[in-house]
Amino acid sequence: MTALPTPADLAGLEVGYDVPALPGMDEAEIQTPCLVLDLDALERNIRKMGDYARAHGMLHRVHGKMHKSVDVAKLQQRLGGAVGVCCQKVSEAEAFVRGGIDDVLISNQVRDPGKIDRLARLPRSGARILVCVDDVTNVAELSQAAVRHGTQLECLIEVDCGAGRCGVTGADAVLAIARAIDAAPGLVFTGLQAYQGAMQHLEAYEARREKLDAAVAIVKEAVTALESAGLAPELVTGGGTGSYRFESASGVYNELQCGSYAFMDADYGRILDEHGVRIDRSEWENALFILTSIMSHVKPDVAVCDAGLKAQSVDSGLPVIHGRDDVTYVKCSDEHGVIADPQGLLKVNDKLRLVPGHCDPTCNVHDWYVGVRNGKVEALWPVSARGKAY
Amino acid sequence: MTALPTPADLAGLEVGYDVPALPGMDEAEIQTPCLVLDLDALERNIRKMGDYARAHGMLHRVHGKMHKSVDVAKLQQRLGGAVGVCCQKVSEAEAFVRGGIDDVLISNQVRDPGKIDRLARLPRSGARILVCVDDVTNVAELSQAAVRHGTQLECLIEVDCGAGRCGVTGADAVLAIARAIDAAPGLVFTGLQAYQGAMQHLEAYEARREKLDAAVAIVKEAVTALESAGLAPELVTGGGTGSYRFESASGVYNELQCGSYAFMDADYGRILDEHGVRIDRSEWENALFILTSIMSHVKPDVAVCDAGLKAQSVDSGLPVIHGRDDVTYVKCSDEHGVIADPQGLLKVNDKLRLVPGHCDPTCNVHDWYVGVRNGKVEALWPVSARGKAY
Repeated sequence: MTALPTPADLAGLEVGYDVPALPGMDEAEIQTPCLVLDLDALERNIRKMGDYARAHGMLHRVHGKMHKSVDVAKLQQRLGGAVGVCCQKVSEAEAFVRGGIDDVLISNQVRDPGKIDRLARLPRSGARILVCVDDVTNVAELSQAAVRHGTQLECLIEVDCGAGRCGVTGADAVLAIARAIDAAPGLVFTGLQAYQGAMQHLEAYEARREKLDAAVAIVKEAVTALESAGLAPELVTGGGTGSYRFESASGVYNELQCGSYAFMDADYGRILDEHGVRIDRSEWENALFILTSIMSHVKPDVAVCDAGLKAQSVDSGLPVIHGRDDVTYVKCSDEHGVIADPQGLLKVNDKLRLVPGHCDPTCNVHDWYVGVRNGKVEALWPVSARGKAY
Repeated sequence: MTALPTPADLAGLEVGYDVPALPGMDEAEIQTPCLVLDLDALERNIRKMGDYARAHGMLHRVHGKMHKSVDVAKLQQRLGGAVGVCCQKVSEAEAFVRGGIDDVLISNQVRDPGKIDRLARLPRSGARILVCVDDVTNVAELSQAAVRHGTQLECLIEVDCGAGRCGVTGADAVLAIARAIDAAPGLVFTGLQAYQGAMQHLEAYEARREKLDAAVAIVKEAVTALESAGLAPELVTGGGTGSYRFESASGVYNELQCGSYAFMDADYGRILDEHGVRIDRSEWENALFILTSIMSHVKPDVAVCDAGLKAQSVDSGLPVIHGRDDVTYVKCSDEHGVIADPQGLLKVNDKLRLVPGHCDPTCNVHDWYVGVRNGKVEALWPVSARGKAY
């Protein structure tokens, strides 16, 4: 933090500065809208999931695609015992490796020749690099690049366990690709990627369990076939915030990939645990907020805040105003949020904390996380892999 | 462009580079997903709107909130005769001023004390700075800051002409604020901001005209009251891609604020002109695309592309695949788009151009515009004010 300018350093600048806050500021001085992390809540979430994984004999590879932050990933390693990160793109992996994360899984396919070349260079940094494969053609492409750069890529076969998107179906296809990987120079067959993304947000616990039971059956069949062929997987990895208890109890997965648990969002908050209680009341605290200010209140019952579509993604619904049931965020346009304020309670410059509908794409529009504790700005962390979609 | 590295410079890097393309590359080498600008189409759109404004005696202040790019704004000044830009946030204005744009309107209210201070410093750069006001309390706040910094801020009163968000209603309120501005040291009363944002995307031309007729009546009443008080406005500014013909014909507006016309998007493309023809067929060309690649095609009728929620905003609907009616983008998740390919036409690494549902928040998730002409990358322009929401 010593390299960051202080508020006094910036006071003379004509054209402002490119950060929403500086360490040491009072929370009231933060320039909105921006992402705020409640550091106490974040640390509790991270420790809790780390303890859970340890108690259940699971590795935890945290999903860095959610936060895209080297600093948060390192906190997850330090406080939560995370073995490394997963992410979805080569450019994200580059950002994590550059930041010092030395065990990175791209839980996705890499097919473009330019990207394969960049991927195959990454192990030269000293990091362990893993990638997913769902097409036997890709095996030769990856192998040639690894040989060209004198590196080693670990490969996981992605199994479609119900999401119907990427990933192979059927043990025969798994076996054919595993054999090709095992025979390919520069590649190592490490195991299976089996993330059931389509069920994570189902509200009822039992509905999620049914989907995951089906996924586990598919994965078990693939593991049995691999074992019979002498290719027992070292890693069987998957599991998200909506499902990690099922993978942990499956007897076949040995690594979790949870992401959203650390920050939470409004959409995940609505799903229910086994007792029918929302998980943002029973399991995980909201640690991520969009801090917003009221900037117009000309009509008595309509307040306008400064957080619109440029400060969040509304793909999974509008944000929820944290800790208030007397005012409601009802409409989102490019730079404004309309807040119903039927009792006229809000004033211009009042600040509100919004829980975003969906944390992943919301984090991806911001450059900074402002970490707060006890009303003071304690940390300013870059969203290291922000925009790294290519 | 001479300061940018060449592909050869980057070939030896271990951990990749932070741009999706470099000038001189073939279009086929671009790393997807990224924003691509068809420079020929962009230049035609810019010239066409510039010619229109000139022929109708209107100033054109282009809306920089849409593209957030200093380079595009300068092209709009050079080819389209734009007088300057408008934008919505102080941090955006800072980015445009820093990039050399010397006439910037913040078409929004600025209320936070820290932001007001930054705003009042901006004219020290030599730029003309204008800001909107909808609350008489704000006049004293702005005046004190301008006096403190020895600068001058030009103020427009924002009139709510139908959107029901920010802005005053009624000529009396306009007059009271205009008198306060006129009397305030450091401030100049320059005119009215009257943008009817809520009607821009109505499909039928007549439905849009009705809304704008109502807006014009509101604005005329305010102008008449101001003239009677000896405070005739120098500028009456507003008008978007869905309405600019109405403001131009109103006899009361003298400045347009169009933004989306330059790039276009799927949602604007669907609105109809006075002959019932979609405006992306009759008036404006699609110049902005998300370039995406197919990265998995395990199921015969489902292709998966690499542009999901981290590459676009879906608030106004899913993207449309440009120039293809045989394949359809049907589902968007964080990093993937699912494409229905019933005839199995697509292959892995095929590239598609997507027209985003909504250009503004889509541009705001990308760091770069890749400008292409004749199959070659010609320009790499930063999204200068990307993420500048505070």
